Amino acid sequence: MRQLTVALGERSYPILIGPGLIAAEHILRHLSGPRVAIVTNETVGPLYLEGLADGLRAAGIGIIKIVLPDGEAYKNGATLDLIYDAMLRQRCDRTTTVIALGGGVIGDLAGYAAATYQRGVPFIQVPTTVLSQVDSSVGGKTGINHPLGKNMIGAFWQPQLVLADTNALNTLPERELSAGLAEIVKYGLIRDLPFLAWLEANVERLRARDPDALAYAIECSCANKAEVVAGDERETAKEGGRALLNLGHTFGHAIEAGLGFGAWLHGEAVAAGMLMAAELSRRLSWITEADVARVRSLLQRAGLPTVGPALGIERYLDLMGHDKKVLAGQLRLVLLRQIGDAVVCDSASRDDILAAIATCCHA
Amino acid sequence: MRQLTVALGERSYPILIGPGLIAAEHILRHLSGPRVAIVTNETVGPLYLEGLADGLRAAGIGIIKIVLPDGEAYKNGATLDLIYDAMLRQRCDRTTTVIALGGGVIGDLAGYAAATYQRGVPFIQVPTTVLSQVDSSVGGKTGINHPLGKNMIGAFWQPQLVLADTNALNTLPERELSAGLAEIVKYGLIRDLPFLAWLEANVERLRARDPDALAYAIECSCANKAEVVAGDERETAKEGGRALLNLGHTFGHAIEAGLGFGAWLHGEAVAAGMLMAAELSRRLSWITEADVARVRSLLQRAGLPTVGPALGIERYLDLMGHDKKVLAGQLRLVLLRQIGDAVVCDSASRDDILAAIATCCHA
Repeated sequence: MRQLTVALGERSYPILIGPGLIAAEHILRHLSGPRVAIVTNETVGPLYLEGLADGLRAAGIGIIKIVLPDGEAYKNGATLDLIYDAMLRQRCDRTTTVIALGGGVIGDLAGYAAATYQRGVPFIQVPTTVLSQVDSSVGGKTGINHPLGKNMIGAFWQPQLVLADTNALNTLPERELSAGLAEIVKYGLIRDLPFLAWLEANVERLRARDPDALAYAIECSCANKAEVVAGDERETAKEGGRALLNLGHTFGHAIEAGLGFGAWLHGEAVAAGMLMAAELSRRLSWITEADVARVRSLLQRAGLPTVGPALGIERYLDLMGHDKKVLAGQLRLVLLRQIGDAVVCDSASRDDILAAIATCCHA
Repeated sequence: MRQLTVALGERSYPILIGPGLIAAEHILRHLSGPRVAIVTNETVGPLYLEGLADGLRAAGIGIIKIVLPDGEAYKNGATLDLIYDAMLRQRCDRTTTVIALGGGVIGDLAGYAAATYQRGVPFIQVPTTVLSQVDSSVGGKTGINHPLGKNMIGAFWQPQLVLADTNALNTLPERELSAGLAEIVKYGLIRDLPFLAWLEANVERLRARDPDALAYAIECSCANKAEVVAGDERETAKEGGRALLNLGHTFGHAIEAGLGFGAWLHGEAVAAGMLMAAELSRRLSWITEADVARVRSLLQRAGLPTVGPALGIERYLDLMGHDKKVLAGQLRLVLLRQIGDAVVCDSASRDDILAAIATCCHA
């Protein structure tokens, strides 16, 4: 078992990574009271819910099971209400710990419910996808989508514990595995050149679900994210900080919103978005054509799309204007000063942005 | 103008109290960006919105006006969505400050929107009722009601500034003025005996809206609340702390929920609830019959109900079980060890609680 710490003072918490971690023994010491509300979905629930609940129940913990429909399309206020309703009907109080058992959608929904139920209850993340293990479960971002934008409603709410069970990845569809690799590649691109080189040497092992390779990639990713989050918990840093984690995300959000949430997986949209960011960086003469090709090649080997859908170029820009990274009307984008070194840029011209999109999407 | 500070480290903020404070000059230095979203209701809006907006606009600030229906019945998710929708349609970003212009419902709704819009934007409270000036605008509690319980969904989110304009109280209906006095009396009962004596000497001046008396009572109330909040920002203290501010509230919440939110004003329910708490304290032999009569007399002189509605005694207890002050199934009540000294008690017997309710409500 690998262990990391997200260093946030009194809100610090451990991340455990390894096979077979979805078990009561790893959770019990982190509970604040005699009950837990386990939030999961119809795909993950049948695989792990009963086993985990049995173990906790054997230790005297009361269990409330909340099984939600599966998919990004359900990351909304109506599904959130299902969590609130169940917790209120069961009279959960402020000592009830919410456990998110599932991917990023479950983590964001359950985390936001934990942040806002009775103004906040304790929370544990048990991510079961690559994407949620390396990204969304770490750092305390929670929230739901709104018809006018992704993750527009939410809260920062740190968990007590993140439990990343690598065995859970064995049942993951191939497409979701690849989507998770997008965020892993991102850490290499924005701040960890040695890790990027390791990924270029090992991406096929990751796609083949080599357990050691997966555990190493998850650990490196979480270590990078934990460092960034520790330096900028609430994304308020003027330069760099947490914003750098959004490489490809402003473009990617436009893809997700433009197609309707759920059509593309988040990681797929981020992959195509990272290509757009790389292409724009090239237009600013920060990186070379060969650098862009290097990014494209790795993403393609990871099984990811590197060309965006045909939304219409102006529509991309319009949808990007709703992104939270926009400050006071000026579009701020994360770009690559060089490979392995990202920077926030608010000076790219509209023409360059449009051209970069046009180069990287279907006509 | 009177000025206090709520001391919360980097989240500290000033409370300004006095006549004529609803003006751009007092707000401008506390803004973080070029736009504000002013949230108000159909009653308060026509009185102050245009004047405030004109002043801010003259200083170059962009204004988004959000006018909601008036009343506790609208403190719900559907009304919250009206705020989100307006802010998203106007593309508000994280530098937009939300200004709550109105009573406690507006403050709670707008504050919760500020806490959760894009995971949190700056927030200013401009309370226009006695209740909101002395209680809900100070301390960072925000939230909405749920059909199964009051304030069940919410967040702690501190404002940048509280602006309590005493002129706004001139247009307040008499019933709302009295409801506000309930929370003022509460501070005397829980922790400020000299203030309680002052109230007994001056309650008629307050009902007559004597400006000096009102400003003094608001300042004393805010000073008491600020001290309590500074010692226990997130209501996590095991003994006392912020929980003491809930004297009468667990009983009061049962009244509000039992009749349907909005039938009784919050302060009215708290007044009847404080009598129940006093009566239960007497049954525990902590205070005397004369003490209970003293509480009843002051509340009656303040124009407040001191007898609860006929919900059925068991129904009271059932509804109290949904209160956030319940920890791990045990009913925790704020009671009076003596007049001017409140304490959290989880050892009152079910029979004593039922008898106290029965004594203080209509059969």
